[in-house]
Amino acid sequence: MMSPQAPDLSRRERRAIVLLSGGLDSSTALAIAVEQGYAPYALSFRYGQRHERELAAAQAVARHFGCVEHKVIDLDLRAFGGSALTDDAIDVPLDRDETTLASGIPVTYVPARNLIFLSIATAYAEVTGADDIFLGITEIDYSGYPDCRPEFLDAFAEVARLGTKAGTEDSRTLRFHAPLITLSKAEIVREGTRLGVSWELTWSCYAGGEQACGRCDSCQLRLKGFAEAGLSDPLPYAETDA
Amino acid sequence: MMSPQAPDLSRRERRAIVLLSGGLDSSTALAIAVEQGYAPYALSFRYGQRHERELAAAQAVARHFGCVEHKVIDLDLRAFGGSALTDDAIDVPLDRDETTLASGIPVTYVPARNLIFLSIATAYAEVTGADDIFLGITEIDYSGYPDCRPEFLDAFAEVARLGTKAGTEDSRTLRFHAPLITLSKAEIVREGTRLGVSWELTWSCYAGGEQACGRCDSCQLRLKGFAEAGLSDPLPYAETDA
Repeated sequence: MMSPQAPDLSRRERRAIVLLSGGLDSSTALAIAVEQGYAPYALSFRYGQRHERELAAAQAVARHFGCVEHKVIDLDLRAFGGSALTDDAIDVPLDRDETTLASGIPVTYVPARNLIFLSIATAYAEVTGADDIFLGITEIDYSGYPDCRPEFLDAFAEVARLGTKAGTEDSRTLRFHAPLITLSKAEIVREGTRLGVSWELTWSCYAGGEQACGRCDSCQLRLKGFAEAGLSDPLPYAETDA
Repeated sequence: MMSPQAPDLSRRERRAIVLLSGGLDSSTALAIAVEQGYAPYALSFRYGQRHERELAAAQAVARHFGCVEHKVIDLDLRAFGGSALTDDAIDVPLDRDETTLASGIPVTYVPARNLIFLSIATAYAEVTGADDIFLGITEIDYSGYPDCRPEFLDAFAEVARLGTKAGTEDSRTLRFHAPLITLSKAEIVREGTRLGVSWELTWSCYAGGEQACGRCDSCQLRLKGFAEAGLSDPLPYAETDA
């Protein structure tokens, strides 16, 4: 089933790359790019995350919004490890309270992940002729990741301009859009709902089980977002002994 | 056989990541890192380049200089194409004259390559605890690539500082070193020779044959460098009909 936002390509010329993990934020960023009239080219990564479930989610969401292309790039960040998401020796933290959630950089931080993903998105933009790159980072409820801050994105735009052929061409200007950057999770849930994101297609859980765990930072932030938006998350969650 | 510069690890604590393609420039950059007393961690990419010959060269050079580790990361830039090095539909240019060599960005430019490679090197640095990253870019004889300019590297250092955990820690400062950036190819050949680079282990050719072609931009710049340095390149070159 196509969503109301599925692109009519005959009317579109402006292309955008959308970094799509298949989670709540990136799915909403895609919905926003579509609403703004871009022909979306989705980009996901098989980077050694704990499960492939989020890639299946990304594929379903890309299809839902009628992406022109969806590239899934293999990049083994397990070669370095250093994160609970890419190193089995580091456990995904569960049941952290709100104070802990809001303090410091958690072990789920993947070294230089957004730097790497944006760099590869820049390559994709150069080749497709897309001047616009969307990503779903947010500095509110952002789990403490340094690569989700606006000053990081501004600096990235500068290095992409200097380090690419597209950036040196007068006819092109690479623009990086983080439309969720000042939104809370509740606001993202409302915005995504308004734009027709099918939440049951998305996946946020870090833990890698059959069902979302409801206990990792990502599940907790998601559930809090739905609760504060006054909406219910259609995703089934694993029953816990708690 | 170990080179005279092989590190004595018991005396070393400072670690450096060295981007190592196995060519003349990156091999010399590695030699310089070793001379400066760093324990080197080499990083190479299987990114869809036309042949694996340069990866074998990188391995041989890493061994020669006693690298503590040598990671080879798979990253399929052929998924995007857009370069003579990653797209079989685009021919590697041969026999270009000096004026053409010095003008514009050639078709061997790989979209956002150094941006991507530096981003992944930053991840590797975060995980190993290396604060220093070496790369062999040079703005002289640089084939017109925008990602070989000093302003690009300065901007990258800034984005790496802002977008990483290491960059936010008071105890760490990520530093990016491009020791060849103002050197001509002849000066690089002299410096590498002084530091014990075994040129017969290195590989520069873009064309992907059994022997170096001697005709692509990379071979031409290399041969010119050896000639101007008054040295002979020990690498065998394919005989041509010319």
